[in-house]
Amino acid sequence: MNNFTWFNPTKIIFGKDTHKEVGKETANYAKKVLLHYGGKSIKETGTYDTVVTSLTEAGVDFVELGGVRPNPRLSLVQEGIKICRQEGIDFILAVGGGSVIDSAKAIAAGVPYEGNVWDFYSTEKQPQEMLSIGVVLTIPAAGSESSDGSVITNEEGPDKRSCCTDLMFPKFAFLNPELCYTLPENQISAGGADILAHIMERYFAPNKNTDLSDRLCEAAMKTLLYNLPLVLKDHRDYNAWAEVMWTGNVAHTGLLGRGRQDDWASHGIEHEISAIYDIAHGAGLAIVFPAWMKYVNDAHPFRFVQFAERVFDVDIVGKSDKTIIEEGIAKLETFYKSIGLVTTLREAHIDNSNFELMSKKAAINGTLGSIKQLTSKDIQLIYELAL
Amino acid sequence: MNNFTWFNPTKIIFGKDTHKEVGKETANYAKKVLLHYGGKSIKETGTYDTVVTSLTEAGVDFVELGGVRPNPRLSLVQEGIKICRQEGIDFILAVGGGSVIDSAKAIAAGVPYEGNVWDFYSTEKQPQEMLSIGVVLTIPAAGSESSDGSVITNEEGPDKRSCCTDLMFPKFAFLNPELCYTLPENQISAGGADILAHIMERYFAPNKNTDLSDRLCEAAMKTLLYNLPLVLKDHRDYNAWAEVMWTGNVAHTGLLGRGRQDDWASHGIEHEISAIYDIAHGAGLAIVFPAWMKYVNDAHPFRFVQFAERVFDVDIVGKSDKTIIEEGIAKLETFYKSIGLVTTLREAHIDNSNFELMSKKAAINGTLGSIKQLTSKDIQLIYELAL
Repeated sequence: MNNFTWFNPTKIIFGKDTHKEVGKETANYAKKVLLHYGGKSIKETGTYDTVVTSLTEAGVDFVELGGVRPNPRLSLVQEGIKICRQEGIDFILAVGGGSVIDSAKAIAAGVPYEGNVWDFYSTEKQPQEMLSIGVVLTIPAAGSESSDGSVITNEEGPDKRSCCTDLMFPKFAFLNPELCYTLPENQISAGGADILAHIMERYFAPNKNTDLSDRLCEAAMKTLLYNLPLVLKDHRDYNAWAEVMWTGNVAHTGLLGRGRQDDWASHGIEHEISAIYDIAHGAGLAIVFPAWMKYVNDAHPFRFVQFAERVFDVDIVGKSDKTIIEEGIAKLETFYKSIGLVTTLREAHIDNSNFELMSKKAAINGTLGSIKQLTSKDIQLIYELAL
Repeated sequence: MNNFTWFNPTKIIFGKDTHKEVGKETANYAKKVLLHYGGKSIKETGTYDTVVTSLTEAGVDFVELGGVRPNPRLSLVQEGIKICRQEGIDFILAVGGGSVIDSAKAIAAGVPYEGNVWDFYSTEKQPQEMLSIGVVLTIPAAGSESSDGSVITNEEGPDKRSCCTDLMFPKFAFLNPELCYTLPENQISAGGADILAHIMERYFAPNKNTDLSDRLCEAAMKTLLYNLPLVLKDHRDYNAWAEVMWTGNVAHTGLLGRGRQDDWASHGIEHEISAIYDIAHGAGLAIVFPAWMKYVNDAHPFRFVQFAERVFDVDIVGKSDKTIIEEGIAKLETFYKSIGLVTTLREAHIDNSNFELMSKKAAINGTLGSIKQLTSKDIQLIYELAL
C-alpha cells in the first residue's frame, strides 16, 4: 500500500426533504450568496422555489446566475466572478449537477485571484484562497459535490481541463434522492456511467496489496450495477435512487483510491471527445472504457481478472486470464447497452477525422494514466479501438 | 435508507515514516501541547523519541502526561485538565491507542468546562467547546483516532461511559503500520476483535435497503478476516498491517453506518464486563458478540443470513435460515479462536456472580440496541448464554 493522506471535510446532508433546510445551513456561512444553476429544469421541478423559500426564510439574500450548460464554459465563470466582485459576495450556492458545481468552484477560485482563472486549469498554478461553496445536488454523476476538483471548458480551444485542490471541497452538500425522479433517461444512464468510471479509474491501479480499497471499490460497483437498472425501470424508486446517489458520492470523495495510484487516462481520453462533440461525459466514458481496457489490460492482468470475477461474477474455473478478462469487458459492454448507452464512437456519430488532434491534446502534459503510461500514439490507437 | 448526516473532518496521514512529520503538522495548531501517552512501550520502541524530536524541530513546546491504562480512568483525565489549565495549553497530542486518545478527548472536553467533565459521560449534557487534539496511533483497534467518541471509566463506580460529539474529531491522525510491529499478540487479537465489532455493530441493523453500506461493511470485514491472521503469523508484515490499520480506521469513522440504525448493544454489554474484570475490551467483545447474535438473530434473520453467506462464504444451498445463521456464528467463533481469543466468560475466568448488577447497569438509560431492544432481563440472558 502506498503512503497517502486522506481528508474530506464536506458535510453531507442526505435524504427525503433535506434540501428544505439549505437556507439554515447556508446562513452558517453567509448572509448573501450567488445562487448558481443551469437551465429551466430546477424551475419546472419546484427545486428552485424550495431553495429560494428556504434561503429567504433563513434571511439569506442572493443574486442569481443561471445558464450553466453541460461541459461548463469559462465565459459564464468569468461572468460569475464579475458578479461576485460587484456584489461583494463570498459564498456560492450551486443547485444542480456536476457542471453547475464545477462552474461554482471555478468562480470561487477566480474571485480572489487577480489573474485569469483559466490559469488554474491550463497551468500548474494552484489557487491560494477561494470563496466557500455549498451544494444542492440534482444529478448523481460527477461526484463534484464533495470532491476537490472542477473541470471547465474554455470555448476558445475548445479545451477541457481540470483543477484540483483541497480548497475546492464544498462546505456542505444536500443529497435528496427525490430530486432525481424527474431526470431524463439519457441523463440517468450517462450519470451512472460516470459514477462507475470514477470507481474504475481508482480500481484499475498498478498496485498490489490494496485489499481494502479493492473491496470498497467492488462494493460500490456492485451496488451501482444492481440499482441503476432499477431506477431506469421505475424513476420514482426512492430506495434504488438513494443507493445510486450515495454511491455516486462515495465513488468520488477520494476514499476509494487511498493507498493506490489512480489511473484517470480514460477521463482524459474522453474529455477530448466531449470538448469537441456534443456528447455527455458519462456517455463518452461508456465508449472509451472498454476500448481502454482492451488496450491496457496486459500491463497488469491480475486486476482485470479480479474485476471480471468479483464485480461481474465471471466463472473463472478452467479459463485463461485472457478469456476471463475478455468476458469481464464483454459484461461491462453488455451493462452499458442494457442502460441505453452505446459503446462505439460510430454509434455516437463520431468519425476518425479528429483522432490525431484529440490524441495530441490528451497527452499535452506528457503521458496519461498509471496502469500503463499512454503516449499520444497509444491514445490514438485507443480511439481507433473505440471506433 | 434512513436520512442521515455524514461529516468527518479528521486528516489521516498514513504510511511508512509518516509520524516523523508530527511536529510540522502540530505546529499548524499550537506552539505548546500536552503530550499524552500510556506506559513505557512508546519509550522502548523509540516512538516517544521520534515524536519528541519532531516536536522540538518544529518548535513545539510540550508538557508530558503519561500513565494512561486500558479502560482510561477519570482521575488521570482530571489531572490532565489541571495541567492544561495551569500551563495554558490548548492542544493535546495523543500518542498511543484508543485509551490514550479517549483520555485526551476527555481532557480536551474538560479544560474549558466549569463543571465536572464526568457530566458529559454520565448525563445528556454535551460539550459546547473543546480543545483540539492530534493523534499518533500505535494500536489499530478502537478507531478513536478519527471518531467522534470517547469512553472513560470512573473508578468510583466503577462506571464505563461514553460521550459523542462532532467536537471530538481529532484534527489529524498519523497512522504508520510499522508502529504495530512490536505489539504483543493479545493486543493484536483483541484489537482485531474490536475493529470487527465496530463493523458488526453497524452491519446488524434492522433496516433493509442499505445496499451500499452493507457491501462496504462486508468489504471491511473480509479485509480484516484475511489480514489479521497474517500479522499474527508475521508481526513485521507491512502490507497486512497496513490493511488492518486502514480497516480499523474506516471501520469507525461513521461512514459504514450511514443510512441505517447502528446497534451497539454488544458494546454496552461488554463495557460492564471490562469495567469490573481485568479483560481487554476487544477480548470481551469476542465473548459477547456470538452470544448476542444467538439471542437476537430471530428479530431480523435476513441480515444474519447475509452475514453468513457474504462474509463467511457459508454455502446456503438447500439450508434453512436457522442452519445458515448457526453456521455463520460458528464460523465467527472459529475465527476468534484462531486468533487466540476465548469465546466464553468461563474461559476468561469470569463467573455469573455479577450478572444481575451488570445487566441493570447496562440498561441504566433504558434498553440497549436497535435490531432488538434489550431490557436488563434480556441482557442477563445474554450473559448466561456467554457463560
